[in-house]
Amino acid sequence: MDESKKISVGVLGLGFVGFVMSLVLANSRKKYNVIGFDIDPQLVKKINSGILPIKSSDKNVNIFFKNSIKNKNFQATLDQSKISLCDVIIIDINLDVIKENNLDNLEFDVDLNPFKKAIKTVGENCKEDVLVIVETTVPPGTCEMVIKPIMKKCYKQRGIDFNKLKIGHSYERVMPGPDYINSIINFPRVYSGINKISESQTKEFLETFINTDLFPLQKLHSTTASETAKVLENSYRAMNIAFIDEWTKFAETAGINLHEIISVIKVRPTHNNMMLPGFGVGGYCLTKDPLLASWASQNLFKSIALSQSEKSVLINDNMPFHTLDKIIEINKTNKIKNILVLGISYLKNIGDLRYSPFLKISDSLKKLCDNLLIFDPLIDKNKYTTNSFSEIKNKRFDVILIGCPHDIFITESFLFKILKNNKDSIIIDPFNFIQNSEEIKNKIILIGNGK
Amino acid sequence: MDESKKISVGVLGLGFVGFVMSLVLANSRKKYNVIGFDIDPQLVKKINSGILPIKSSDKNVNIFFKNSIKNKNFQATLDQSKISLCDVIIIDINLDVIKENNLDNLEFDVDLNPFKKAIKTVGENCKEDVLVIVETTVPPGTCEMVIKPIMKKCYKQRGIDFNKLKIGHSYERVMPGPDYINSIINFPRVYSGINKISESQTKEFLETFINTDLFPLQKLHSTTASETAKVLENSYRAMNIAFIDEWTKFAETAGINLHEIISVIKVRPTHNNMMLPGFGVGGYCLTKDPLLASWASQNLFKSIALSQSEKSVLINDNMPFHTLDKIIEINKTNKIKNILVLGISYLKNIGDLRYSPFLKISDSLKKLCDNLLIFDPLIDKNKYTTNSFSEIKNKRFDVILIGCPHDIFITESFLFKILKNNKDSIIIDPFNFIQNSEEIKNKIILIGNGK
Repeated sequence: MDESKKISVGVLGLGFVGFVMSLVLANSRKKYNVIGFDIDPQLVKKINSGILPIKSSDKNVNIFFKNSIKNKNFQATLDQSKISLCDVIIIDINLDVIKENNLDNLEFDVDLNPFKKAIKTVGENCKEDVLVIVETTVPPGTCEMVIKPIMKKCYKQRGIDFNKLKIGHSYERVMPGPDYINSIINFPRVYSGINKISESQTKEFLETFINTDLFPLQKLHSTTASETAKVLENSYRAMNIAFIDEWTKFAETAGINLHEIISVIKVRPTHNNMMLPGFGVGGYCLTKDPLLASWASQNLFKSIALSQSEKSVLINDNMPFHTLDKIIEINKTNKIKNILVLGISYLKNIGDLRYSPFLKISDSLKKLCDNLLIFDPLIDKNKYTTNSFSEIKNKRFDVILIGCPHDIFITESFLFKILKNNKDSIIIDPFNFIQNSEEIKNKIILIGNGK
Repeated sequence: MDESKKISVGVLGLGFVGFVMSLVLANSRKKYNVIGFDIDPQLVKKINSGILPIKSSDKNVNIFFKNSIKNKNFQATLDQSKISLCDVIIIDINLDVIKENNLDNLEFDVDLNPFKKAIKTVGENCKEDVLVIVETTVPPGTCEMVIKPIMKKCYKQRGIDFNKLKIGHSYERVMPGPDYINSIINFPRVYSGINKISESQTKEFLETFINTDLFPLQKLHSTTASETAKVLENSYRAMNIAFIDEWTKFAETAGINLHEIISVIKVRPTHNNMMLPGFGVGGYCLTKDPLLASWASQNLFKSIALSQSEKSVLINDNMPFHTLDKIIEINKTNKIKNILVLGISYLKNIGDLRYSPFLKISDSLKKLCDNLLIFDPLIDKNKYTTNSFSEIKNKRFDVILIGCPHDIFITESFLFKILKNNKDSIIIDPFNFIQNSEEIKNKIILIGNGK
């Protein structure tokens, strides 16, 4: 990379990762000229009009965005021919899993087509010595067995030397929330490349925006290895959550509180990754990543299914029905008229509905009662939810479900204000969220607590 | 407990836990008068003759034993009527699972009879206000649903007040090896009791020999809860080991090194409990504890099987066959005459053959080759093994299997000396044990590494 002129970096896909990645690059010490590519005209227009396209509790997101406007070094575009301007291209487009599941069985497939199409566009338009860095979570083997052949074909058609192409893999560990930006800059990173030069240039590039003094880069010796690392990380978490599911049910029948039990076990460093009972698993990663490895194993390597990892996804997908069952049980003896759901995000303290466990039971809840009201101030008002407290504060509810344990329910006293009019409501608390609130005298049904 | 006179503590069962527990009590600041009960006359004789009945790399074991002889406050006995002398009784007898498994299916049952018999002996002989503390890993619910009824019946027959009886539960986390004694004294502890007085007296007693300044005791609100904590802890580890099994096989087909991949993932504190590929799972705990909860759930609480936890045991029990398969594969192309196995303990740096994974494949290995030689200097010479290095050092081997990665193989250069005569041997290394030895030029087959 020529140090004398401004380096242009293209970011393909301006979603939860790509947009914030663009901000980090535009604000890095290299002050890259960042071109963000997306296929959503609304999103592109918003960004280029200086409107932040996402809600975030990390104030750095706003600061970084404002800076990039001031410095004029981040623009979004629909025009893929601009790929030809980029010295580095970061792949942050989605790669989706199509799932079809019921209580006992999970069917799934990986839809590689949009991803392949995007790679082809890169191959047709890129500078011949471009450095392509894949951040998307992909089935292991994708760089070598999917991307390389597509790029090779494009280079051949363009009559240029394929050996000039550099492909690196370095997966993101982005976590929306108050540390959104830091989850890129101040976080450990793994990288790899399809050859030595890809590997070293990927490393050099990462060093320009990651705090490698505190978080030294970690090299893996093949792109397949680092692709596997990412899906293994998330499979580990998915599996550890799924593991607790049957213990949750056991604790309820054995008359013990699993939250309390796990809290004393987690004191041991060898056991501190243990997960707690809860409502379910959502978000874009844990709900699909364990399936990517199993898909790759069967389809790219013609080998075994990773059945334990697949099972984890199935168990986690079904988890919200356990909480639903508690509500159905109540309804059998006391017909429920009004239900309030507090929080519907998939993760606490962030506003993100992607694959939220609540979505799995929302239709059933609507059918079960006369009125289903939802309050989640972190999520934009939509077909599910109100974010206006005044709409609910004077209403009466038979059942109050903690759908996501946002801190603001306590810190801003939302919960206590609601309970003033609802001393007889039954509270369903899958998170052991209100365990220590002496003020709350309601009947509380905890998930994983049979005491 | 009267502080003025010497307190007598009975320890039932002088196995891997009970014996060392006895030493800790005899050497505690209370200098308890410890009476160790066992049904093995050889063991009792050995102890009372001042011969250490176990081999340990923890030199404190020997020091504590010598001290207890000097102070005359630890004796072993076969005579169960001496239970009547004890103010406190610690239950450290085994509670076994009978397993019958093949590749696809696991059948098991819990044999409570010896345990029940021992409890009955306590009930028939104990002081009426004795404090019974259960340390044995038991099916959750055992204190309430098994021990209490037996004791109640005994008290009734003796015509004494059952309400005087105190039962506490406080499971051990003993780890044989160089920190054997410390795994009792300097380690977190959980406790519980069947009522308030049992709870508080159990706590007081534990405080006399555990370093509670550094490791504060953690209370759980029922004996069923703390019984569950113990089996959940070990199920967590068993499940995390089992989880890696299918990724191990995936890595081998995908041509990547899973050891290397996991090492970069474990940098994240949220993922640092991740397990590595290996040879298999042994020892007394992980091979059975996950089954105790499932048994209790079905038999004591008439509820669900914990099928994920059961599956973990099945996967782990079958793990050694994957390494065996590698050897069978070699034998197909090059008939193997001589095999050397280095290390057969279930855990590195300790001499302990209990349920060692090696035992699962030893017969197959014997049949497969002409000579199977085993070298494990930490294990007493027995039907499996020699611990004399001179017997093997000048022999030639076609295959060398690292069965357990004891440090002494490297630190005392055993491995390098053997390899001098065995430059063509194929080394099977399930532990990535010899990864960085530049000196070793042999062909190495790693488990979980397809590179």
